[in-house]
Amino acid sequence: MEDPFRTIEWRGDHIRLLDQTLLPLDEKYIEIRTVDEMCDAIKRLAVRGAPAIGVAAAMGIALGMLGASGMDREAYRARFDEVCAQIAATRPTAVNLFWAVSRMRAVLEKAEKLNVPDPSALLVEEAVALEREDRALCERIGHNGMGLLDDGDTVLTHCNAGGLATAGYGTALGVIRSAFENGKNIRVISDETRPLNQGSRITSWELQKLGVPVTLIPDNTAGALMQRGEIQKVIVGADRIAANGDAANKIGTYSVAVLARHHGIPFYVAAPLSTIDMSLRSGTEIPIEERDPREVTHIGGIAIAPEGVAVRNIAFDVTPHELIHGIITEWGTASEPYEESFRAFFAAQEKGGAV
Amino acid sequence: MEDPFRTIEWRGDHIRLLDQTLLPLDEKYIEIRTVDEMCDAIKRLAVRGAPAIGVAAAMGIALGMLGASGMDREAYRARFDEVCAQIAATRPTAVNLFWAVSRMRAVLEKAEKLNVPDPSALLVEEAVALEREDRALCERIGHNGMGLLDDGDTVLTHCNAGGLATAGYGTALGVIRSAFENGKNIRVISDETRPLNQGSRITSWELQKLGVPVTLIPDNTAGALMQRGEIQKVIVGADRIAANGDAANKIGTYSVAVLARHHGIPFYVAAPLSTIDMSLRSGTEIPIEERDPREVTHIGGIAIAPEGVAVRNIAFDVTPHELIHGIITEWGTASEPYEESFRAFFAAQEKGGAV
Repeated sequence: MEDPFRTIEWRGDHIRLLDQTLLPLDEKYIEIRTVDEMCDAIKRLAVRGAPAIGVAAAMGIALGMLGASGMDREAYRARFDEVCAQIAATRPTAVNLFWAVSRMRAVLEKAEKLNVPDPSALLVEEAVALEREDRALCERIGHNGMGLLDDGDTVLTHCNAGGLATAGYGTALGVIRSAFENGKNIRVISDETRPLNQGSRITSWELQKLGVPVTLIPDNTAGALMQRGEIQKVIVGADRIAANGDAANKIGTYSVAVLARHHGIPFYVAAPLSTIDMSLRSGTEIPIEERDPREVTHIGGIAIAPEGVAVRNIAFDVTPHELIHGIITEWGTASEPYEESFRAFFAAQEKGGAV
Repeated sequence: MEDPFRTIEWRGDHIRLLDQTLLPLDEKYIEIRTVDEMCDAIKRLAVRGAPAIGVAAAMGIALGMLGASGMDREAYRARFDEVCAQIAATRPTAVNLFWAVSRMRAVLEKAEKLNVPDPSALLVEEAVALEREDRALCERIGHNGMGLLDDGDTVLTHCNAGGLATAGYGTALGVIRSAFENGKNIRVISDETRPLNQGSRITSWELQKLGVPVTLIPDNTAGALMQRGEIQKVIVGADRIAANGDAANKIGTYSVAVLARHHGIPFYVAAPLSTIDMSLRSGTEIPIEERDPREVTHIGGIAIAPEGVAVRNIAFDVTPHELIHGIITEWGTASEPYEESFRAFFAAQEKGGAV
């Protein structure tokens, strides 16, 4: 089945993306024409999800460098560094953002070595390739993970690790979708995922469009359903994974992992290799974004808390590797010791080239 | 310190209560003049919290029977049964509702035995006594529990077990308030408590009014704060407690209890004896209310989920006694085996009379 939407798309001189802040009430595509506009879109979560942010970052850089065509080599490089720094400062947790910046930098360096007069076309090409790759590797993640789901399973997911968190198809939802499209009877429980309700607004909407049976619950209901025996598996995405397998993901993921462990329910993470940060030994080194208290105290402009109340709005938490049954990537499902699995996958990727 | 509000109050020919659905934006008292109006107020949670519902039920019955003054004995009894049935049908989980109905029935039966010509005045007296008692026993719960909190503790609470869940002072918040008013440096983390946000709307508001430092979090953030070592104790209320100590409370309480256990954090329940239902052997026998899906899919009339999505809106869950470190009552703190503790407390109450 085709994706029922297009998360992000290169359009020659601009980028078109689905404004995810307006879902599910409004399915509106916006046009991004400057680096500032792209940074704003990433910061306010018009585009979100680690892999999608990676693609958005690459396209944002390509867009910024279109305007630098014709500059001399030094000025071009200075502009490139400036654009990359601006993009890299948007959000701290998802490593795919920094990974995409590195990929773009590698292209520029190669172009410089080859004395390419104007590297902008190559940068555009790389950004577009990155988007295509991301879609393809999500399908591979789906294929690799679907065997972990059994016919008749009800699967809990948290936040949105679907087509809208990627260039398409999704990671955690990609696994669910693969199993479903291959004839398994799968039902999904979607945590609403406060404070920005990606579960109610995006995951439910995506699964409805795909025809996968989905039931929405408040985040605090997952434990009660596990206690009743109504959940067989948990699959979530990730924003950054340390070498030891510790995985940062949307706030609340850690609580779900603890609950899953308490009930003996397998807990899986699905993510591309670009989410794995081998430079970090453990999850304690992952920078965690804290966001505006107003996201917690207001919904749609309406106050739901007394004025001036103190708030903790921590955007991500870290699930330690001991609570994770497997990390499903495009190169296979990693398991303990994760570092070994990851090294093998990176080696395979090196050998096999891009997906 | 005086309560900064009055949850519910008998006013001669009507009942005045703070409409909790409008908090924190609007501090509006409403007048209840019929049994229908009281049933509606309980159903739509204008008054909520197990002990407060008990008082509301008793006052609702007294109000209904005022209109029956002058009826002959059989007609009066028939009307009484009708009013009680209507009140008892409002909400299924909080046992205090049924306990209050029994207390009123005992008064009527005594009046019948004594051939009191019009028992209405006695019923009003009982309802008013019940409100006064509830306030007093909450203070005793606070006093009994405050020793469990240490100077410097940050205490997590879920939903609202404060003055607004009772006739005043509160159960879980009563313990916090006692410790705070006795000079302990206590901070509170308040789970927002989806879907009706009693934590953000009511608990935060109440604690702000009392001057207790409070920080609001989405429900899914409790685990991350425990992981970071930022929470030392958990105290919650209860809507019904079985003889073995299993405790039904607002949905999400069970998840908090599992998280507390995982992190070695003591988890306490604070509730009056009227919340203990010795007729139930375990929590599996407690009826659990499921409510309108719209509470999950809409906030303030605004849709936050796609149209037609399936929803589970389970209002309560049951925390098994093994996860509870102690149940703080007006007669002391019960511990394993709970049934024994409870029997001793009921015997003391029998002997000592009302609090």
